[in-house]
Amino acid sequence: MSLFSDNELTLNEFLGGRVRLWQPKTGYRAGVDPVLLAASVPALKGQSVLELGCGAGAAILCLLARVPQLQATGVELQPAYAELARRNATQNAMDLSVVEADLSALPRDLKQAQFDHVIANPPYYKPGAHSPSTDPGRQIALGENTPLTEWIDVAARRLAPRGYLHMIQKADRLPDILAACSGRLGSAEVLPLSARVGRLAELVILRARKGGRASFRLQSPLIMHQGDRHLKDGESYTPEVSAVLRDGAALAGFASDRQ
Amino acid sequence: MSLFSDNELTLNEFLGGRVRLWQPKTGYRAGVDPVLLAASVPALKGQSVLELGCGAGAAILCLLARVPQLQATGVELQPAYAELARRNATQNAMDLSVVEADLSALPRDLKQAQFDHVIANPPYYKPGAHSPSTDPGRQIALGENTPLTEWIDVAARRLAPRGYLHMIQKADRLPDILAACSGRLGSAEVLPLSARVGRLAELVILRARKGGRASFRLQSPLIMHQGDRHLKDGESYTPEVSAVLRDGAALAGFASDRQ
Repeated sequence: MSLFSDNELTLNEFLGGRVRLWQPKTGYRAGVDPVLLAASVPALKGQSVLELGCGAGAAILCLLARVPQLQATGVELQPAYAELARRNATQNAMDLSVVEADLSALPRDLKQAQFDHVIANPPYYKPGAHSPSTDPGRQIALGENTPLTEWIDVAARRLAPRGYLHMIQKADRLPDILAACSGRLGSAEVLPLSARVGRLAELVILRARKGGRASFRLQSPLIMHQGDRHLKDGESYTPEVSAVLRDGAALAGFASDRQ
Repeated sequence: MSLFSDNELTLNEFLGGRVRLWQPKTGYRAGVDPVLLAASVPALKGQSVLELGCGAGAAILCLLARVPQLQATGVELQPAYAELARRNATQNAMDLSVVEADLSALPRDLKQAQFDHVIANPPYYKPGAHSPSTDPGRQIALGENTPLTEWIDVAARRLAPRGYLHMIQKADRLPDILAACSGRLGSAEVLPLSARVGRLAELVILRARKGGRASFRLQSPLIMHQGDRHLKDGESYTPEVSAVLRDGAALAGFASDRQ
């Protein structure tokens, strides 16, 4: 896949305009998921953060908007998205190092580095479980050519002692996620995300810690929308979600952050 | 441990008096957990149900109270509790076959039987993780001499094709539970139980199906108590939980039961 030309791109606003991202019109387009992921990370000024599969940079640039002066690195397999992430960092006057690589074959200098935080929003669909997309970039971004276990294994290897992984993923992959953490990361916590009160969790955000020894914790779900069902067009986000998406707030869904 | 004498026992009411159970004053005493477990099982008249580790019979007798004419079998390691389960079945005029056995060494006729439902409320504490109880019966009932994987393995072996396992357990054991289901049972669903809105899940009820192929589902939590915190003594159960505990209602926590 070649690089994107300008007429294949649109400029979209995130965090109420604090972050503006060029995204492909027809390829993989960031929704609220990377924004929620970024909001869940308790990163502190001066810490290092690695995003695995950063795409056009939505998650890590939203994190940089909330926590400035992070040492931020993104790994992206697809050259066109890696280039877009660099462009988006410049667009937002943020400092992001983008490495074009397959996460299962990281370059030597990255393999020798350790990070306080690793974040990832891995592809949501297992190969063969859904019809392939006709857009090859979108297909790679959604198609999970790399198993989820590999994402967690690479994250665990790149984390500094006591470092945190945060990962957002479909809720039906929770058994796979927890199995992959076993023996690699500890102190796992899961924040379920539900569209409305009383509904099944659609997504989960995993927090796990390198060398962590605390018991597993299942958090109360974050409810995305107000009301029992969709009543009218337009925004119906709950105040907590709206504060994240519109005002760039941190997500207080993990109990350990609220203590 | 010898059998209980009458002055070591008290008679307690469950399901608003629909079930009355003799329980040891100082040993393992059933709380709301086996009642919630029983309420989660979508058993139908005429089906067969096996409880692993039935203790004094709280869960399976509560299930029999809601769904009569089940073919009910309980396995219990400790002779005194097995005897108590038999006495409690008679007390409630219910038909329960109690087998005194270690679940990892079931007698031959039980090993040849298959059940539409298996239920279990395995001990909550890992060996070594808590100080041992001074009561040996309570110690065995709480102490997990048999690993959780073994409970799920035995349950899977005893289930008929398409049969259901329901298990209640501490939420921090969810990773172990899901790992144990892998390769043994499918269509796993988890119902978290939280003391109050917004709190961590304390318990989970697992539903899994022999031969099931559906994706994992994480249900919306069942909230046990009304209000943000404990304000006064006495009952503060939510209406849904009260309907289960006081009126013997089924628990509609699993989405598939509500459809």
